[in-house]
Amino acid sequence: MTGPRYTPLTESLPATVPFVGPEAQERAMGRAFDARLGANENVFGPSPKAIAAMQAASAEIWMYGDPENHDLRSALAADLGITPANIVVGEGIDGLLGYLVRLLIGAGDAVVTSEGAYPTFNYHVAGFGGLLHKVPYKGDHEDPEALMAKAAEVGAKLVYLANPDNPMGTWHTGAEIVTALDKLPEGALLILDEAYVEFAPEGTAAEIDIDDPRVIRMRTFSKAYGMAGARVGYALGAAELITAFNKIRNHFGMNRAAQAGALAALADQEYLHETCTNVAAARDDIGRIAAENGLTVVPSATNFVAIDCGSDGNFAKAVLDALVSRGVFVRMPFVAPQNRCIRVSAGRPEDLAAFAKALPEALAEARG
Amino acid sequence: MTGPRYTPLTESLPATVPFVGPEAQERAMGRAFDARLGANENVFGPSPKAIAAMQAASAEIWMYGDPENHDLRSALAADLGITPANIVVGEGIDGLLGYLVRLLIGAGDAVVTSEGAYPTFNYHVAGFGGLLHKVPYKGDHEDPEALMAKAAEVGAKLVYLANPDNPMGTWHTGAEIVTALDKLPEGALLILDEAYVEFAPEGTAAEIDIDDPRVIRMRTFSKAYGMAGARVGYALGAAELITAFNKIRNHFGMNRAAQAGALAALADQEYLHETCTNVAAARDDIGRIAAENGLTVVPSATNFVAIDCGSDGNFAKAVLDALVSRGVFVRMPFVAPQNRCIRVSAGRPEDLAAFAKALPEALAEARG
Repeated sequence: MTGPRYTPLTESLPATVPFVGPEAQERAMGRAFDARLGANENVFGPSPKAIAAMQAASAEIWMYGDPENHDLRSALAADLGITPANIVVGEGIDGLLGYLVRLLIGAGDAVVTSEGAYPTFNYHVAGFGGLLHKVPYKGDHEDPEALMAKAAEVGAKLVYLANPDNPMGTWHTGAEIVTALDKLPEGALLILDEAYVEFAPEGTAAEIDIDDPRVIRMRTFSKAYGMAGARVGYALGAAELITAFNKIRNHFGMNRAAQAGALAALADQEYLHETCTNVAAARDDIGRIAAENGLTVVPSATNFVAIDCGSDGNFAKAVLDALVSRGVFVRMPFVAPQNRCIRVSAGRPEDLAAFAKALPEALAEARG
Repeated sequence: MTGPRYTPLTESLPATVPFVGPEAQERAMGRAFDARLGANENVFGPSPKAIAAMQAASAEIWMYGDPENHDLRSALAADLGITPANIVVGEGIDGLLGYLVRLLIGAGDAVVTSEGAYPTFNYHVAGFGGLLHKVPYKGDHEDPEALMAKAAEVGAKLVYLANPDNPMGTWHTGAEIVTALDKLPEGALLILDEAYVEFAPEGTAAEIDIDDPRVIRMRTFSKAYGMAGARVGYALGAAELITAFNKIRNHFGMNRAAQAGALAALADQEYLHETCTNVAAARDDIGRIAAENGLTVVPSATNFVAIDCGSDGNFAKAVLDALVSRGVFVRMPFVAPQNRCIRVSAGRPEDLAAFAKALPEALAEARG
């Protein structure tokens, strides 16, 4: 008896992947975190109206969700002044990135991203046999010009750019994105990941024609809308590209309660505004806590803040480990020099109090 | 400005796919269905404890779900007497079938299924460039011997067999499956889709060693557990194969409330038993309604019943259309001679009353 015959690509993929959730850390530690500030989750949570909608839909969960996501796409279209044909809803941006890579990337196809940018995108590119080319950050910012130059050099089919950026929280103006787009080489598609754009200053969302075939934008209910666990992302772009997702997506893949929750969350823009105010205050608090410990922060347009621990990646990792062992879940960038920082999500006062208490101890331990 | 460069495979896939939900039909009709009996959803719904767990988790949906699905996999493992390493949880069986096909099937690889069996599996095979070979049903049953013989003939990497079957509701004993498995050719993997197995008579689940590398079983919380809209499926198999899913799956793809709901549903076996009793009674009622209209049914081990409309596919389609236009959502098999039937899900008394009222009118209209 032999086992299954995998594809050569499957055989070549690494058996272990770097997706470790805080629950796994909690199981290893034998205790729950006091503050969950590592995954850029929105601790302020969704609108109470969204929670109520999900709870009501839970009682009717025996029904599959609408495979067309009609109501949510219609509401988003009305909100954005576009048509439902320009919108595909999927199982989080992660799911949509997987579908998009599958649509475009085969063995050896060139893809460009930034060194240290979103690892799940890289995971999907590798998973479909694409060849990743990376350019460094520039002053803790993604570098649109360098991305475009690299794309031209390697003949990229896909270019990934997050604005605002994760893990640094930095951002470009929409006007800068539009300028950079003009340098996108012919035949390349720009993925503009705007997962955090609702937190960013006015003018951060680039003004790009929805029918522009050079760009697809990714947005989500996981961040500003506080629904990470619901898995509702959406992509915006030219109808032809959006329609292509129907060739391969998991049509009945959306959770029905999540669809209802996202619809209710979208309708409660007042709550979204409150959340953004709360997050801005939390960013300030994180800056203050950092300053009290002699550290600086990287200015952020997201719901997290990169704190510069003032040394190298080893030191930041020691600080991180000491925070984690004290019950404060945080993460850090992967590559130098950004890995001199730890990344702390905007929390409620009680979360940040736990962080403020643990940080000086963690620094002392790391200096040690 | 040109558009994105798709892969040759993507270019070759059909732009439209046959996934039409009842909501789309309702929008087209301008009214809601009175009875939703077309998608093999479990109208009796999930355990009240599962609903309560999903509602509680909705309030904490700002957190991503555990990417390892640890608690659910541990509970399933304990229940089944296996280890969590033998279980992968995913976004419904549909999602898991997509991952499995991706792991094994590349351009031109041979896959075997039955003519008229699960179309979503065929969709995934086509989506990864596989070559589908089909064998006919035998007396409204899937034909394991013919599947194995075809697999040997074409050198199949994957063989799909649902037990009990959808869309006919027929089944084989577990012993028959075990016997057939011995004829599975070297290098092929059998997908044993057991989505409906909880409804089936004792002895329908085949006794196969969990570490047998020739088989992967698919199960779900969508059917007997009444949680189709939650999207929780799981696959059982040898640890090596199960672990391979980690190379490509959407690690953070599971809805957190759905994870909690499935865990609570699994713990309430008493409710599951009640559901199966209700479903068996509803199957009998459907048989009685059919008989009152001079029709026979195909014996079923699932939560749906194929009613033989006594003529050909055109006639059954006319009956179906007439039912739909009277507010009763049902579906039907795709291929002859199984398409002489309509497929009616087990409903509550009020659902079946709507069906009983509409059926004689629909038959009269179809007879014209």
